[in-house]
Amino acid sequence: MTPHGSAVPPPVTVVMEAAELWLPRLMGGVEQRLTGAVSAHGEALGGDAGATLEAGGKRLRPMLVLLCAGPDAGAAAIRAASAVELVHMATLVHDDVLDEAPIRRGRPTVLASSGRERATAVGDLLLSRAFAELVDGDHAGAELDRALGAGRRVAMLATASVALARGELAQRHDAFDLSISPDRYLERCRLKTARLFECACVIGRDDPGADQELAAFGREIGLAFQLLDDVLDVSGPVDRTGKARGTDLLDGTVTLPLIIAREHDPGLAQLDLRSLDESSAAAVCDRIAATSALEQVRDGAQRRVELAKRILAKAPIDAEQRELLSLVADGVVERYS
Amino acid sequence: MTPHGSAVPPPVTVVMEAAELWLPRLMGGVEQRLTGAVSAHGEALGGDAGATLEAGGKRLRPMLVLLCAGPDAGAAAIRAASAVELVHMATLVHDDVLDEAPIRRGRPTVLASSGRERATAVGDLLLSRAFAELVDGDHAGAELDRALGAGRRVAMLATASVALARGELAQRHDAFDLSISPDRYLERCRLKTARLFECACVIGRDDPGADQELAAFGREIGLAFQLLDDVLDVSGPVDRTGKARGTDLLDGTVTLPLIIAREHDPGLAQLDLRSLDESSAAAVCDRIAATSALEQVRDGAQRRVELAKRILAKAPIDAEQRELLSLVADGVVERYS
Repeated sequence: MTPHGSAVPPPVTVVMEAAELWLPRLMGGVEQRLTGAVSAHGEALGGDAGATLEAGGKRLRPMLVLLCAGPDAGAAAIRAASAVELVHMATLVHDDVLDEAPIRRGRPTVLASSGRERATAVGDLLLSRAFAELVDGDHAGAELDRALGAGRRVAMLATASVALARGELAQRHDAFDLSISPDRYLERCRLKTARLFECACVIGRDDPGADQELAAFGREIGLAFQLLDDVLDVSGPVDRTGKARGTDLLDGTVTLPLIIAREHDPGLAQLDLRSLDESSAAAVCDRIAATSALEQVRDGAQRRVELAKRILAKAPIDAEQRELLSLVADGVVERYS
Repeated sequence: MTPHGSAVPPPVTVVMEAAELWLPRLMGGVEQRLTGAVSAHGEALGGDAGATLEAGGKRLRPMLVLLCAGPDAGAAAIRAASAVELVHMATLVHDDVLDEAPIRRGRPTVLASSGRERATAVGDLLLSRAFAELVDGDHAGAELDRALGAGRRVAMLATASVALARGELAQRHDAFDLSISPDRYLERCRLKTARLFECACVIGRDDPGADQELAAFGREIGLAFQLLDDVLDVSGPVDRTGKARGTDLLDGTVTLPLIIAREHDPGLAQLDLRSLDESSAAAVCDRIAATSALEQVRDGAQRRVELAKRILAKAPIDAEQRELLSLVADGVVERYS
């Protein structure tokens, strides 16, 4: 249920090459803004943000912003792309709040506790900085269009960012509950992952004429992305995902593979997730994989990608944009396949 | 070093009565927006946000927004006031991330760990919601002035919110360091407390003509507020502050009273803050109080309030606003005196 992996998947490279005349230049602009956003608070952020810049390495979301904005994307779209990535980075950092908790003599070590405090503050800084990106320069001598656009973009990003937090809360609420329904799971995915993809597909555009289709496109590939991520948590390969199998299980996060598998292997519905350790979690992964659950979820992701491409076909955008966005959609399900 | 207490100080009541013809109505509007912001995510936020709405009970910051905006303040100022309070609430919630960490058998209990996760997400939600407040309604059929104003307000709030996070990081960085300088301490107070007061004093105004003076006014009373807060952490009374004496010490946060006291009682510079418990922390508070440190810091806060009022005298604002803001300034140092 973590919408991010450490390995660089192929789609970014494929798309960069296909749009080599304009996309790498714009992506370079985003990278420059991200580096600037982080280095402006160098002393405060220290190594944390540098590491996070690396960790968010795929840059899938800013790429979507720029692809949807098109070859003529200007400074506002580049800033919007940077803002979306900063929100994503903030969630990565806040997810990490929970990962480092060494305990000594029944109390958190000072190191662990200041690590957690730092991570909370670093995430807050990145989240605040994201909104600053959207209005940077707009408050001095701004023109009507830019000002209106900035307000619209702030509203879009805030909506996505609120949804992310709600998704995280829903996931917490459902933790260790083996009886959650597929619908509830999908609702969580919508909030936690799909809404930011949706936002990425519209926030960089000046013309709202294709917003409805592009938002739906973003939503579907966002869901496909999350479905596949949850498959990879069960299937590995560990050397590609960069994390142990069953991380979600250990976290109490019940995802669709397990929800489907419990219908085929009712013993799975009786598990005590709280008692799992790394090796028993891997064994549960094997039991899930022994059912047809992973294939079913993979098929579901594939169907969403197909739907996304059909929606794209109807969107009033350039043929080149359509083609590039299709590549991204394909790339989402081709990870590690 | 926590810029918030649980008791309601007099200034809010005094000012509400002095401006009874217009302020209570506008403050009611803020309260309505805050309740709306929280209840819109009722299921997700549950009791957490309701408790936080209570905890931030003073509403000093939104009151500053409205006093500076004046009797004719409209919907945009009310939304700005709500946004500032939501940022403040987000920091309260994220501060709480660290307060609940019961440990069982060398591991955090599920309750504690999901408490921390929830608090992180709730804070993120409130922070995102703050920015949404500023552009609410502006993206549909907005006019130039409102749009330009919204962009300006987003930039102001983002700057303050980034500063808050930087201040928190600086405080973490300095934790348990008994050698930090008064300047470094003041810089932390500027970031962690004064910048949001500063923002509150300008973010609700349409006319930027008095921004410089009002920002300086906000900065000085913000610093005075923090200085006094740090005195109260040492002096109590516990029944008024709502927390044990020496909370900052136990947290490793070295504040001005200790920085000054260590010059008079050099033994204080040799303390091992990490080994303190509640009763030895109270004893350190007594040692600090036995020097002239608390009087010196109180005097410093008083001088800042006087400076704030001199700055106010030069600000191009209405006489009534000047008078009400002076009452707020006085109230800041009159807490529990």
